[in-house]
Amino acid sequence: MSRPKAVIAGVGQTDFSKDSGRSVQTLALQAAFAAIDDAGLQPSDVDGLIPYKIGPSSEDLIAGLGLTDVRFSASTHMGGASPVASLRTAQLAIESGQADAVLLFVARNGRSGARVAARLGAQVPGGAFREGLEQPHGFSTPAQWYALFARRHMIEYGTTREQLGAVAITMRNHALLNPAAMMYGKPLTMEEYASSKLIADPYLMFDCCLETDGASAVLVTRDDLVTGKTAPVDLLGVAEGHADSADDIVNRRDFFQTGLTKAAPRAFAAAGLQPADVDLALIYDCFTFEVIQQLEEAGFVERGEGGPFVEEGHIALGGSLPVNPHGGLMSEGHIAGINHIVEAVRQLRGVCDARQVKGARVAAVTGWGDLGDGALAVLGID
Amino acid sequence: MSRPKAVIAGVGQTDFSKDSGRSVQTLALQAAFAAIDDAGLQPSDVDGLIPYKIGPSSEDLIAGLGLTDVRFSASTHMGGASPVASLRTAQLAIESGQADAVLLFVARNGRSGARVAARLGAQVPGGAFREGLEQPHGFSTPAQWYALFARRHMIEYGTTREQLGAVAITMRNHALLNPAAMMYGKPLTMEEYASSKLIADPYLMFDCCLETDGASAVLVTRDDLVTGKTAPVDLLGVAEGHADSADDIVNRRDFFQTGLTKAAPRAFAAAGLQPADVDLALIYDCFTFEVIQQLEEAGFVERGEGGPFVEEGHIALGGSLPVNPHGGLMSEGHIAGINHIVEAVRQLRGVCDARQVKGARVAAVTGWGDLGDGALAVLGID
Repeated sequence: MSRPKAVIAGVGQTDFSKDSGRSVQTLALQAAFAAIDDAGLQPSDVDGLIPYKIGPSSEDLIAGLGLTDVRFSASTHMGGASPVASLRTAQLAIESGQADAVLLFVARNGRSGARVAARLGAQVPGGAFREGLEQPHGFSTPAQWYALFARRHMIEYGTTREQLGAVAITMRNHALLNPAAMMYGKPLTMEEYASSKLIADPYLMFDCCLETDGASAVLVTRDDLVTGKTAPVDLLGVAEGHADSADDIVNRRDFFQTGLTKAAPRAFAAAGLQPADVDLALIYDCFTFEVIQQLEEAGFVERGEGGPFVEEGHIALGGSLPVNPHGGLMSEGHIAGINHIVEAVRQLRGVCDARQVKGARVAAVTGWGDLGDGALAVLGID
Repeated sequence: MSRPKAVIAGVGQTDFSKDSGRSVQTLALQAAFAAIDDAGLQPSDVDGLIPYKIGPSSEDLIAGLGLTDVRFSASTHMGGASPVASLRTAQLAIESGQADAVLLFVARNGRSGARVAARLGAQVPGGAFREGLEQPHGFSTPAQWYALFARRHMIEYGTTREQLGAVAITMRNHALLNPAAMMYGKPLTMEEYASSKLIADPYLMFDCCLETDGASAVLVTRDDLVTGKTAPVDLLGVAEGHADSADDIVNRRDFFQTGLTKAAPRAFAAAGLQPADVDLALIYDCFTFEVIQQLEEAGFVERGEGGPFVEEGHIALGGSLPVNPHGGLMSEGHIAGINHIVEAVRQLRGVCDARQVKGARVAAVTGWGDLGDGALAVLGID
């Protein structure tokens, strides 16, 4: 028997809102049923589960889906890089024969429930460092941490406010084409962007992503289980990486180096492709500058060229490298980036209507989390 | 090139105590350095990390060990079944070429810091069920949950107080031969056992495992990286399983069926062995009855025969199936069962002095957690 091959066979999402009115268990189940149905399979086909670190557990899905033979479960602790890195865990489980159908899921009441800014303190890695040295100074939320990187890039490479704004506005323009986006129907001008309130210099409110109630799920299966209901998407190359001494942002030898810097060459090598081969990119847009940084660190542009690249419109639909046609974390919703995988799959299937990237055959999806963790998946369709 | 093979190349532990006086990060690093040194390798050889759900993160180890090229990280969310199930994740990463040396670690200040009984409420799976239906009735700690299984087994199969006590006393007798055990030098009689205070009927204090400050680490590597400093241990078969509807202890079709019931046949099949081929077993002994239950569910004895089996001395050193020569969670220490893997490796190497199981070539290690999760690893040495 030849070695089984893993493909993404189904994707599913709930609505995205500020107040779901449902438990995270219910949200996870809704997304899971949708992903399984999208693949044309039954819940009983699922024999592997990959929960997010926070939120519903494998047991919640076993109970809710009525599963009786889960053979594989694992998780990834890389913050927003987890869903992308988990694609490879699913692939390993399937291609080694440990499971036939592995469901990845993230569900959160990220707005109506525990909000990141109010919650993260005790949960971030490097607890002693953060709790002892950072939090006493009020340095305790992602916007504050990432703002330092943005400011240093502005100093070193001349990245501008308008370039940050170009990211925010591009994401919003894309969301105007996505009826499922939280910001659908809500255009954003550069003037509105620039006059929004300061969160953590240089980050204004519209430099920051959304907080969202909702769930997404991705079903990875053996390719011979594909039903034909939807087109399978290939996992051409998936890799993770970790920055040197991720907790040490002061002494890090290369300030902009992250896990993605290490993951991207590995993922592209596994795929046998180059960044130039990518038709669209799904970038983990927790803040505006992080889109610029990831474009650089993943190798789409040279370091320092990200600002002009976004300002010149390359990342907009119709540009040379459309980024986040769904609107991203900034304007669609924040489901820890698993919604970026869902969008990549839908774009490769060609079912995205007004926001469709024409002829998309290869997509790159980044994951980004915990300051130093990164992952990249190169996805393709025949 | 032939497919790489994964082996356990090193193990390491800290001291076990009621008050370590150190952070969990420090404990994890001590165990990690010890495991790496035990394998005769360098920290820079490590390129994969498997943290426990709770406690130090991959980033803590990356920072503390000075790692610069971690390519794989994953975790397992199966409570006390996690370390055993994680052995297979490490094996998958290595045998697929994603990593060459994967470090599993658990570190906790389980006694001086957050104690399980005081902490678990909000963290157990099935939060809504537990928080809404169980906790209002004061039903919120592992001793309470597992006590129901013990009582039902006593009713259905005639398991006795003395049989539960035989487990506790056997574990204690073993610890008297293990200078690293928390209960070294502290013998326990049946009279002391039977007169200890009631925790949750039928569980007395000495039916319950310890709470421990400490850490353990296990290093899994490609077999061609083995240095010869210590003998490598083979992962003959590792599998996980999940009970049907793990949260639903009322309507579960088979009350004693657990994840281990499903995992054990898969692990033994992968190893090409039977329970009768095992020279010693490391059983996740969170409570006395759970040893009896796991002996039955893993297939070492028929259901209902576990009580007489332990009472007749089969699980003692010198018996037909020695269990937990280190003293287990009940008398060595509670490091979420990763210390059972460490003991299995040392027993197979034949370095356990007074508590050595003579001629041990095959060991079975169980993992057990979150009421319905189970895992079993069959380990062997050439």
